[in-house]
Amino acid sequence: MFIRNAWYFAGFAGDIGGALAERRFLGESVVMFRTPAGRAVAFSNRCPHRFAPLSMGRLVGDRLQCAYHGIEFDFSGRCVHIPGQPKIQKGACVRAYPVEERWGCVWIWMGEPARASVDALIPEFGVLADPRWAPVHGVKEVAAGYELVIDNLMDLTHIAYLHPNTLGNQGGAQAAEAEAHTTVKGERVRVERVIRDCEPAPLYRSVRDIAGRIDRYQYSEFVPPCYVLIELKVMPAGTQDLASGLEWRVFHIVTPTDERHTSYRWVVTRHFAQDDAQVSQALWDGTNATLDEDRAMIEAQARMLEGTSLDARTLPTRHDGTPARVRRIIRELARREEAPLVAETGP
Amino acid sequence: MFIRNAWYFAGFAGDIGGALAERRFLGESVVMFRTPAGRAVAFSNRCPHRFAPLSMGRLVGDRLQCAYHGIEFDFSGRCVHIPGQPKIQKGACVRAYPVEERWGCVWIWMGEPARASVDALIPEFGVLADPRWAPVHGVKEVAAGYELVIDNLMDLTHIAYLHPNTLGNQGGAQAAEAEAHTTVKGERVRVERVIRDCEPAPLYRSVRDIAGRIDRYQYSEFVPPCYVLIELKVMPAGTQDLASGLEWRVFHIVTPTDERHTSYRWVVTRHFAQDDAQVSQALWDGTNATLDEDRAMIEAQARMLEGTSLDARTLPTRHDGTPARVRRIIRELARREEAPLVAETGP
Amino acid sequence: MFIRNAWYFAGFAGDIGGALAERRFLGESVVMFRTPAGRAVAFSNRCPHRFAPLSMGRLVGDRLQCAYHGIEFDFSGRCVHIPGQPKIQKGACVRAYPVEERWGCVWIWMGEPARASVDALIPEFGVLADPRWAPVHGVKEVAAGYELVIDNLMDLTHIAYLHPNTLGNQGGAQAAEAEAHTTVKGERVRVERVIRDCEPAPLYRSVRDIAGRIDRYQYSEFVPPCYVLIELKVMPAGTQDLASGLEWRVFHIVTPTDERHTSYRWVVTRHFAQDDAQVSQALWDGTNATLDEDRAMIEAQARMLEGTSLDARTLPTRHDGTPARVRRIIRELARREEAPLVAETGP
Repeated sequence: MFIRNAWYFAGFAGDIGGALAERRFLGESVVMFRTPAGRAVAFSNRCPHRFAPLSMGRLVGDRLQCAYHGIEFDFSGRCVHIPGQPKIQKGACVRAYPVEERWGCVWIWMGEPARASVDALIPEFGVLADPRWAPVHGVKEVAAGYELVIDNLMDLTHIAYLHPNTLGNQGGAQAAEAEAHTTVKGERVRVERVIRDCEPAPLYRSVRDIAGRIDRYQYSEFVPPCYVLIELKVMPAGTQDLASGLEWRVFHIVTPTDERHTSYRWVVTRHFAQDDAQVSQALWDGTNATLDEDRAMIEAQARMLEGTSLDARTLPTRHDGTPARVRRIIRELARREEAPLVAETGP
Repeated sequence: MFIRNAWYFAGFAGDIGGALAERRFLGESVVMFRTPAGRAVAFSNRCPHRFAPLSMGRLVGDRLQCAYHGIEFDFSGRCVHIPGQPKIQKGACVRAYPVEERWGCVWIWMGEPARASVDALIPEFGVLADPRWAPVHGVKEVAAGYELVIDNLMDLTHIAYLHPNTLGNQGGAQAAEAEAHTTVKGERVRVERVIRDCEPAPLYRSVRDIAGRIDRYQYSEFVPPCYVLIELKVMPAGTQDLASGLEWRVFHIVTPTDERHTSYRWVVTRHFAQDDAQVSQALWDGTNATLDEDRAMIEAQARMLEGTSLDARTLPTRHDGTPARVRRIIRELARREEAPLVAETGP
Repeated sequence: MFIRNAWYFAGFAGDIGGALAERRFLGESVVMFRTPAGRAVAFSNRCPHRFAPLSMGRLVGDRLQCAYHGIEFDFSGRCVHIPGQPKIQKGACVRAYPVEERWGCVWIWMGEPARASVDALIPEFGVLADPRWAPVHGVKEVAAGYELVIDNLMDLTHIAYLHPNTLGNQGGAQAAEAEAHTTVKGERVRVERVIRDCEPAPLYRSVRDIAGRIDRYQYSEFVPPCYVLIELKVMPAGTQDLASGLEWRVFHIVTPTDERHTSYRWVVTRHFAQDDAQVSQALWDGTNATLDEDRAMIEAQARMLEGTSLDARTLPTRHDGTPARVRRIIRELARREEAPLVAETGP
């Protein structure tokens, strides 16, 4: 189940170049490229003539030419040339997806084009474009549906058990017991959790010289269709001395490739030691290792779920409330848009 | 959708030897071999006892013996020995497919044996057996249904775009614009196209020293169930001087392995420089490269078609008329034979 | 179609150790291990919370801890700890499978636990634990359903044709012709076959110096759910002199992994030359080669059966009666238990 009327992350600005590239979002094959004028564009990868992949084609001036029979489209998707056929039928086109660039990211709209800027907004990723923050980032391709990835992020009690060598340890174990405070604002779900007077996690020590015990503030927020932003603040226990602690944000940028595959981009951007390459490396290593553990678990979970459904489980816990709320929002948003959706190849 | 009451190409005469070999036609597994007396034969590869593949068996004198329980069949398919069972039930047999040899090729009949020589004839491949013509040939296994291969051959406007380095170039581009003349005679579809005063294609230059511009005569003919024969004549522009030009025929021998796989044999046979090994090599290289491009496109098209149908396309062109006519003939022939088809294991 | 209310072979005692291991029986994923106290146990590999595989977890004292959210179960399967949740709902548990050890083997019960010791008994494998017998053993993973493996074992006329280099040769050919005597006792099917005055099979010669012709006594017995025990006695023709001949038993321990895969354990245990390592090696080599031939045939047969059923075969033989009787027993036993089967996650 996908939300279609939403902006999906299609790459960082530098990922989209002049070469035609096939990408898959929500089970649809899309051809993306940057026009000679520098604009990022996206079209259905199926030539509407015989379904040849347009990503095998070429740019001929200001036109996209299919590699099979040479049919040409302008950059709005309109068919402008059919070899050997003087007249082109009215409305002939390839489906164009709205594309926007903001915060150094390229966004694609997978639903009704007319609703692209009305129903929903590109998520607030301003920190990514803010030079006072220093990012490291990576990507994992996960062989599981995106909802299992979101579940993982909306119940962080797993940290103590799945990530004992990076984010877990004693602080993590306390986190599982700590009271979480969940609030829902419209279609967003926010979880706040403060773990007081705990041991710093191994990853914290690897990037910052922290002598004693800490207070750990952790805020996670789900933003539809499938983003989770995590804010972390660490301070010496009992103080508000952020300068002696840590502050970072994690952008979990989750994009459904299809029903069973997910492209999982992550960015950790920090507000301390911005120019320290060793800190960058340690953060990259730690986050990458952590997400490898998440991926292995989520893929194993997907295999165990084959032929059944999570609804068949018999042991719900109190921590399930938050991911369950997120799933309900996703279902509600997806259901709401089912009726009026236009046909794939409509104008 | 397959036409069953038809002769399918099973190999050149030399491809069928004394060793049992499994081959697949129209989704059926067949065991083929040459009897000690030299006759090519074909049987269902499923032993009618427990479905063991007979291709794992052996020849014992004038009998085919199953490798599992030793049951034996004569070369008409009749069961002649069951170990430990004195009496064999009446009519016990393995399905035998009619096989014929003609033009140096072996042909297998996949439909009702009784109709093998009545309804349909082995296609006219006489040129293949004519010593005045010099052939080169090869085979491609294509991960797509055979109808996409036929489509490709019945709309040659693709040459300019998909094969710019062999058959395309300027002459090809002109071809896309050139008027094609399509005629239907019974179950055959013929397309004639003459491109006048054009540049020779790169492949022409590589096999023949052609100085100036040319007239290019191209005739394609679809012959059921799935053959396309292409005749090419090239002459200096404005002349009828074939001796200074080129003449060749291309046999596109398309055999459905199953619904999603196709075995694609090709033969290019020429009427000039018959003894020139360099010309043979250049023709082989050029045709092989061209068909690799076709295969890549057809397989990509098949992937893009998954879960949908060409009927969903929204941009038909005038060139689609000819492949559409061929598809209608295939459907009509297949539909016509649906009712009276005998069961697989019938006598 | 599986019989669930039965004891399945899960390994030799030494195969189950302290490490958590995933195993699959009848399409179900199971985690098995030996508790710190030394007891072999088996649970559903799906954590009832979010279906994480428990085989990725760890033992924490006398508890099995899930690797995802740290939920803990005792060794009866009862949930005893949910991090961050003081109260555990009544009846919370993971499905536990009854496990028993006998004859040096570990047995798992895949059906209703309440019937584990009532309906059925662990098969009589006493010879395996008898020091007067010397075993060699091995395992084959077969890409086919288990019923094809049982079919193979219940019609030994195939030996002459499929195994000419080990168990076949002239004696085998005679075997196909020899009268077999089949008796059914309850749910067991026994076939007796005596081949008199025949050549020793190649494998017999490789383990025993046999000069002349022999009498070959062969008894096969099917024991539900899917065991076949074969008893072999070989004596110089016309004598009862077992001391100059051979005596061994073959345990064919067939375990369905799922509908299309089978784990096929074999043990050959002998009553002669118990301490002779060369005889052990020769028996292992010969049996292993024989079962590779069986596996290749059964897997080929499974491929030929795809999309059809053995019911469609047209050439039953008199030897099919015995395997058909076994299939009927399996179907009857499976059908009988369909109604009262409890849900997977029941207590």
